[in-house]
Amino acid sequence: MSLIDAENMARTLDAQDVLAPLRQRFDIPADVTYFDGNSLGPLTLRSREVLHHTIEHEWRERLIRSWDEEWLAMPARVGNMIAPLIGAAPDTVISCDNTSINLHKALMAAVGLRPGRTEIVIDINNFPTDIYIAQSVADQMGLSLIAVPAQEIIGAISERTAVVTATHVDYRSAQILDAAGITTAAHSHGALMVWDLAHTAGAVPFDATVLNIDFAVGCGYKYLNGGPGAPAYIYVAPRLLQESGQTLQGWWAHEAPFDFDLSFRPAPGIARFLTGTATVLSMKSLEAALDIFSETNIEAIRAKSVGLTGFFIGLFDEYLAGKGFTLESPRASESRGSHVALGFAGGKALVQHMSARGVIADFRPPDLMRFGMAPLYNSYGDIVKLVEHLVAP
Amino acid sequence: MSLIDAENMARTLDAQDVLAPLRQRFDIPADVTYFDGNSLGPLTLRSREVLHHTIEHEWRERLIRSWDEEWLAMPARVGNMIAPLIGAAPDTVISCDNTSINLHKALMAAVGLRPGRTEIVIDINNFPTDIYIAQSVADQMGLSLIAVPAQEIIGAISERTAVVTATHVDYRSAQILDAAGITTAAHSHGALMVWDLAHTAGAVPFDATVLNIDFAVGCGYKYLNGGPGAPAYIYVAPRLLQESGQTLQGWWAHEAPFDFDLSFRPAPGIARFLTGTATVLSMKSLEAALDIFSETNIEAIRAKSVGLTGFFIGLFDEYLAGKGFTLESPRASESRGSHVALGFAGGKALVQHMSARGVIADFRPPDLMRFGMAPLYNSYGDIVKLVEHLVAP
Repeated sequence: MSLIDAENMARTLDAQDVLAPLRQRFDIPADVTYFDGNSLGPLTLRSREVLHHTIEHEWRERLIRSWDEEWLAMPARVGNMIAPLIGAAPDTVISCDNTSINLHKALMAAVGLRPGRTEIVIDINNFPTDIYIAQSVADQMGLSLIAVPAQEIIGAISERTAVVTATHVDYRSAQILDAAGITTAAHSHGALMVWDLAHTAGAVPFDATVLNIDFAVGCGYKYLNGGPGAPAYIYVAPRLLQESGQTLQGWWAHEAPFDFDLSFRPAPGIARFLTGTATVLSMKSLEAALDIFSETNIEAIRAKSVGLTGFFIGLFDEYLAGKGFTLESPRASESRGSHVALGFAGGKALVQHMSARGVIADFRPPDLMRFGMAPLYNSYGDIVKLVEHLVAP
Repeated sequence: MSLIDAENMARTLDAQDVLAPLRQRFDIPADVTYFDGNSLGPLTLRSREVLHHTIEHEWRERLIRSWDEEWLAMPARVGNMIAPLIGAAPDTVISCDNTSINLHKALMAAVGLRPGRTEIVIDINNFPTDIYIAQSVADQMGLSLIAVPAQEIIGAISERTAVVTATHVDYRSAQILDAAGITTAAHSHGALMVWDLAHTAGAVPFDATVLNIDFAVGCGYKYLNGGPGAPAYIYVAPRLLQESGQTLQGWWAHEAPFDFDLSFRPAPGIARFLTGTATVLSMKSLEAALDIFSETNIEAIRAKSVGLTGFFIGLFDEYLAGKGFTLESPRASESRGSHVALGFAGGKALVQHMSARGVIADFRPPDLMRFGMAPLYNSYGDIVKLVEHLVAP
């Protein structure tokens, strides 16, 4: 297949793409082809509009009155917009803080629910912040952190395990972990399961309810397009909520924050996992960006994600394999998230070179180029352009 | 003095006010007289401008590239803008998370530095989130929380005390606590001191260096005008930094976050108190709002704050005393922060009634009306208007 053929094929695929109209919801500069939605999603028209309204009407005009009118309910509202994307029931997800802090809360709660157990099991290839946070929880609670490769997690779980944690889609390879197998193994030994859905929500299906997981956390700025540093979220299985402790119990976690009681009474629902005041501007942008998911469904998103990454891997085989590039993501689509990683010795310089030409990807040491393929705005045509730049930078 | 006289006096005072020109930096609606800057500062022109640039240029156009170009350095940069307002040396303050989370970090670090000690002493009239967080730290670490009124704090400190914490300006009464006396008492018993500066920074002088305090935290959305839910900050005395532990050690606290190391090495400086990704939009708004402080100094701010609150108390004596209103803030200006609290049985309804007429204050149960007087934008004329509304709602 020549690149001309690839272009023709991309045109056909783009014409058939049911999600193609959603690209109009994003304001991506004309001179940019964007493959870094796995790090920072682009601006949506709706986020711009809502931020303007938040600044000019809610903050400037309504001032403090906006807390009652609009902002106090936002963490729960945003949580309920994220819930269906991860198979969670209403009122089991809440938006707050960042992923690191939410992981701390989830792990502390899980360890608290399994007194006497002595180990936390973690994927050694987990995103570093997850490992640092888990290490800190282990140190603080006197547990050992058992870090093993994903395929060894199940074997590492035992009656000593208090909690198992892993990221559902590996941030480097895009490998999808065996959520059902690992969760079941954890439960069969009486351990709890905390999933990090940073590279899942908005791109890869996940069903917290069917999988019967215990806790999940994730961020708002990748495939959810909430904007730089958008707030994260936390999910707690309803069956665990009442008995789950929260070690960062700020006033927003109180049953009645504005009673200003001296004694802490945890909110009956998922709000008990809040801490202090929500970052309104950042959360408003996330809320606005989430709107787009009401126009489609996760099956359509997943189908296009598989289509995009599969198309790219086909072109990789044709044009890049054997030219210093290696495929570092799974070939089997059922095991692959929504980005594709290529190994390349000069990857850092190449990513920088392409970025200066408007083709934006990212790089992770030592030699991994990552190409996020976001079903809501990337096209098959974008991918041909990417390959052109990789072939002849 | 008739209200006509008061109006004349206000005109004179406003004409002499060296800070009066700074009101032009704020976009306060013409039909609003605002006395709630102690809860949420109003929009500055600069925040609007910077947010627009952040959305349109940094996020939309530069996308992921803005992390290197602009955003990564922001928590430290904003910390350094806050530092002079609280008498902190450069690179000892960093902006991040919310006040509750930062208080948790400070208390955990302090308790970690005083092993074997069994008590945390706290002002029982502290803002509830401080009490909830301190209770949680005490429970987690097996310490007792000793909650006493401000005037009993010094007497409650002993060789058992690991850490003492209080809010410098009481959120209800605006009473300024004896920072020097309490800090010295803590140190004389070998305990550490954590100050919450939520109602201090930007309105009331505080000198972390001269007072030789150990930790401080505070929020960005009151007198710093950072916008709804603006990020908070944390100060750590440089002499304690290297030995201070951080139990929420996310990747931003790492010496080299983008090395993606598996083992955590804390950043050498104050960045070790970061957690995860900064909320860019919210922090940008705070950074922009802080600009205004470069145009004045804390002495001028304090002088006007005392002038405003003193003028209001004078009018209270004339028009409100004995009519159901009681003064619940100190008369002595050296003991008074930048708001004035009045007790009034029908306070909640009155605040709502006035708010509907554009005179905005706030209410704290059971019967406290709070009037924040912000030297950067409130005028003496504003205060006459406030009294008119209180006299004849």
